[in-house]
Amino acid sequence: MALYSQSIQNLIAALSRLPGIGRKSAQKLAFYILEMDPQEANTLAQSILKARENVHVCSVCCNLTETDPCEICSSPKRDHSVICVVGEPKDVVAIEKTREYKGLYHVLGGLIAPMDNIGPQDLSVRELLVRLQGDAGAKEVILATNLTVEGETTALYLAKLLAPVGIKVTRIAKGVPSGADLEYTDTATLASAITMRKEIQNS
Amino acid sequence: MALYSQSIQNLIAALSRLPGIGRKSAQKLAFYILEMDPQEANTLAQSILKARENVHVCSVCCNLTETDPCEICSSPKRDHSVICVVGEPKDVVAIEKTREYKGLYHVLGGLIAPMDNIGPQDLSVRELLVRLQGDAGAKEVILATNLTVEGETTALYLAKLLAPVGIKVTRIAKGVPSGADLEYTDTATLASAITMRKEIQNS
Repeated sequence: MALYSQSIQNLIAALSRLPGIGRKSAQKLAFYILEMDPQEANTLAQSILKARENVHVCSVCCNLTETDPCEICSSPKRDHSVICVVGEPKDVVAIEKTREYKGLYHVLGGLIAPMDNIGPQDLSVRELLVRLQGDAGAKEVILATNLTVEGETTALYLAKLLAPVGIKVTRIAKGVPSGADLEYTDTATLASAITMRKEIQNS
Repeated sequence: MALYSQSIQNLIAALSRLPGIGRKSAQKLAFYILEMDPQEANTLAQSILKARENVHVCSVCCNLTETDPCEICSSPKRDHSVICVVGEPKDVVAIEKTREYKGLYHVLGGLIAPMDNIGPQDLSVRELLVRLQGDAGAKEVILATNLTVEGETTALYLAKLLAPVGIKVTRIAKGVPSGADLEYTDTATLASAITMRKEIQNS
């Protein structure tokens, strides 16, 4: 005999596929959802469907957006001469919170990680090149990938790749403790890392 | 400027309302959902809606079910002369896993907890009384609420309440360590606690 009815089993199975949610947590969440206000449970389900439906990748910077180009790319208030390259959309949020940066972004959609079989071809590197070659306005590219092994590898790779383009390439300062993720860095440290960025000297 | 687009904000807000999910986890889950296979994200949303739609409370035992009466209440293979009273649907699952018990259940929908303002009137106590008075078949009620303060209080309350009904009332043995939840008890301990149950002597 099945211990849970089919609908509950399906819900537990779907929830336990989420990252960081084991079987016990999924079970706890499922019972919570079953006892939720019907309106609220509906809101949760609809917000998943709506987000999937409305959120797309910006055709310019590859960040997640509901408009194309995204709010930042299409804003006349932003400095279109600087492009800050980050790994993930959450890194854009971390930098925006510092209120220190007024330029544009480019979201790679990950970082080079040979151990996980992620190479430049899996990231929006080609889109970055096309963007820099097509757009005469960009004067500086800030490499703001994580200060981890993957982030440093990606930054080094991009610095070499962009050297022939003839645009100034900078790296955020190592004010951020080495080995840390941007997402978990405090705002003040991140702000100083952006202010103290220095040009990369290609050998 | 909003850091996330509206759909992402809504998704993060809905997820962070779930128990044990803070803002950072909700953000992590939201980005995971946005990068999920569309089919899988749809399955997750639908499983929430389906579970809410299909799962109801059994009119006999108050357990969660998709049929009414539930599978256990309507099974001729179960011993209809014994009713095991538990706090939550997950306690039914914990006991079913022992394969030691073949009787019926009654799910209270919680435990008496004066600190949280939960009294007998908030639980399916009235339904239990109606069930015992109407059904001539029940010969024993096993009180299998948690061995916590709330569970013991509920068991004591029910033992006194059921004394006039003239049905044998038993309590699961204290093989389960005091202060523990049924849900987290290992199967062998739970099985022995059911086997070693003893009658409550009313003063």
